[in-house]
Amino acid sequence: MKPYKEMSREELLTLKAELEKQFEDAKGKGLKLDMSRGKPTPAQLDMTMGLMDVLNSESDMNTMDGIDTRNYGLMDGILEAKHLMADVMGGIPAENVIVYGNASLSIMYDTVSRAVTHGVLGSTPWCKLDKVKFLCPVPGYDRHFAITQLFGIEMITIPMTPEGPDMDLVEKYVSEDSAVKGIWCVPKYSNPQGITYSDETVRRFAALKPAAEDFRIYWDNAYSIHHLYDDNQDQILEILSECEKAGNPDMVYEFASTSKITFSGAGIAAFASSKANVEEAKKFMTIQTIGHDKVNQLRHARYFKDLNGMLAHMKKHADIIRPKFEAVLAVLDKELGGLDVGEWTRPRGGYFISFDAMEGCAKAIVAKCKEAGVVLTGAGATFPYGIDPKDSNIRIAPSYPTSEEMAAATDLFVLCVKLVSVEKLLAA
Amino acid sequence: MKPYKEMSREELLTLKAELEKQFEDAKGKGLKLDMSRGKPTPAQLDMTMGLMDVLNSESDMNTMDGIDTRNYGLMDGILEAKHLMADVMGGIPAENVIVYGNASLSIMYDTVSRAVTHGVLGSTPWCKLDKVKFLCPVPGYDRHFAITQLFGIEMITIPMTPEGPDMDLVEKYVSEDSAVKGIWCVPKYSNPQGITYSDETVRRFAALKPAAEDFRIYWDNAYSIHHLYDDNQDQILEILSECEKAGNPDMVYEFASTSKITFSGAGIAAFASSKANVEEAKKFMTIQTIGHDKVNQLRHARYFKDLNGMLAHMKKHADIIRPKFEAVLAVLDKELGGLDVGEWTRPRGGYFISFDAMEGCAKAIVAKCKEAGVVLTGAGATFPYGIDPKDSNIRIAPSYPTSEEMAAATDLFVLCVKLVSVEKLLAA
Repeated sequence: MKPYKEMSREELLTLKAELEKQFEDAKGKGLKLDMSRGKPTPAQLDMTMGLMDVLNSESDMNTMDGIDTRNYGLMDGILEAKHLMADVMGGIPAENVIVYGNASLSIMYDTVSRAVTHGVLGSTPWCKLDKVKFLCPVPGYDRHFAITQLFGIEMITIPMTPEGPDMDLVEKYVSEDSAVKGIWCVPKYSNPQGITYSDETVRRFAALKPAAEDFRIYWDNAYSIHHLYDDNQDQILEILSECEKAGNPDMVYEFASTSKITFSGAGIAAFASSKANVEEAKKFMTIQTIGHDKVNQLRHARYFKDLNGMLAHMKKHADIIRPKFEAVLAVLDKELGGLDVGEWTRPRGGYFISFDAMEGCAKAIVAKCKEAGVVLTGAGATFPYGIDPKDSNIRIAPSYPTSEEMAAATDLFVLCVKLVSVEKLLAA
Repeated sequence: MKPYKEMSREELLTLKAELEKQFEDAKGKGLKLDMSRGKPTPAQLDMTMGLMDVLNSESDMNTMDGIDTRNYGLMDGILEAKHLMADVMGGIPAENVIVYGNASLSIMYDTVSRAVTHGVLGSTPWCKLDKVKFLCPVPGYDRHFAITQLFGIEMITIPMTPEGPDMDLVEKYVSEDSAVKGIWCVPKYSNPQGITYSDETVRRFAALKPAAEDFRIYWDNAYSIHHLYDDNQDQILEILSECEKAGNPDMVYEFASTSKITFSGAGIAAFASSKANVEEAKKFMTIQTIGHDKVNQLRHARYFKDLNGMLAHMKKHADIIRPKFEAVLAVLDKELGGLDVGEWTRPRGGYFISFDAMEGCAKAIVAKCKEAGVVLTGAGATFPYGIDPKDSNIRIAPSYPTSEEMAAATDLFVLCVKLVSVEKLLAA
């Protein structure tokens, strides 16, 4: 079929009638599918049930260095969990890591909240400043944007490129505007595009010359070992050491978790940074908590033993997720290829596929899908304030439904894309 | 022996020489004991090891209402854990409860932090106010005071009475000063005195008429079922319903945890309040977290089944802790009775005994103990800013050492009390 934009009005009208009929048929199928969030599917969670056998009433509950995980103390996490998470984050020193409870999102919230109330390493608390800004590569992760929005932080969008955020713009803002205090990054298999920052991008990040002493890179390394393929894997430079090499040791806060490795509801999460930043975080933790769940940390560390154990585990995850990605991509290629009504990414890892519809079509496509029983992430969610200026980006989350369901959901999705695109062209 | 204050200078000098010799002997024993923190002893933790058998790889991981605890979602906690914690807090409705991760201290920190950045139910954020004050019944819990101090909140001490905080003073401050935004309370088996607020005290709390709309009672119900005796147990009125009856439904935030019921490092914690306050907390939680560890919540709920299961468990705890309290009290009675050099409480529950030395002696006693190998909570810790104006109060935490160790540690403690008191009287 030829590109829609080359069709005559008559051709478009005929096509529209056909698509509308197909849509009515689809509605009749009573689909009820959810592609809205990056949730592991039950089969993935089942794979991890061995975690529940690691500890029992006969277990030695002490850490490798003899600390009783059941009692108070050891606020910054047990040593074996530090080592494990340090390796997940690319092989950084364990002393640069703090292991938390089950959600890296909470650590990010906390880190921003602390800067708002107390500043960063002695800087003015952000609540005392007239204006605080964050750079937000787009499309990006809605929950990042929700945190900065909650604290009244102005968000400036930075376009993503296939190499990562547009670094010319990042450098300009960071070096010129001292109100710019941070940038949200998902550097590997980014949410939602699945893009991994190139070596040059990482090096340019590490070499930033911020106008604000309290500027930090919020490096959400959520998908560091979440490959879809055995052979075709993205690699990324380790940011902490790059920052140190570039003379900016304190410039990055890194976050990671096992939410999509073990249990989304009951994993462990980690923070990593320079010695000075880790010490500052610990200073606040002494007041904020009596320490996180060390028993669950022990359970995780013993279950995997080391990074290799985790990588082997992630291969099994990939075997479950990969077919779903491929099912989506196959339908997109087959049904939309050549029509020039959208573009999509082909990630080699992570949890999402990003789809860019024709301008002004995303909301209508998501609404159409919903009408016929397929829930997508809300259009605009991948942008700060939920506003996609082009109304174009849609995040597809293939992980939760089965491959068959994903194929059915994507069939509906492409139908909605076609229909909305035709309507758009006719209205133009 | 007669009261020290009635001794002649010569008698005191003779006594001092004797006590100094005893102290040198004691130092020679090489004691190394810690009575500083309310930590469960390993025997208590061992009692709870069955918790580790509740879930295994064959377990049904769904809640009673069919939610998969392993996955994302259900931010405010699983239903069975809400019921359990609601009962721990005195039989409140489960819908008034949010179940969190392992530390109630984190919930308190968060609640204060949120008020600082965003206010309370629409009030002005405290960071925008010139002055925010909290009332602090003393002696009290050092970690409470640390939170308010961190946020620059001015702390006003309120003397404790055998019925709870001095309510005349509380009423005066709360009704007259709109900068007073909160009061820290440990209402049952208080830290460190083991006092339980009387019914009249609770009713007067519920009937407060705050000048500030965002005034809240921070009700840290940490020891609600932590009785030492089967028959001689303190009871307390349930504060949420009292506040509701008094027309102040939103005035209290309640906190609780299983830190001293299951594992201090890996329990579950809860927040309870009115519908409006719970809704507000949840609104922030949608941004702050993807939810707390639901698997551990499930583990706890299934282990205890209900409050009765928990109460039976706490009886076994009491059998371990009670002899330690009694060992301390026996030595205090025997060695210090009639000397008029100090007063102490006889709690029927909780984790602490409070000792009031002669004015100006607490720091010296703690230092002396340390010199001979017994670590006590720092003198002053039970007061805001770590400053006990009378330098009198010392918190004794008998839970961690064995009964024999506690007796030995208390022997040293009373020796130090005697010696410091004699020195004080001689210097007067």
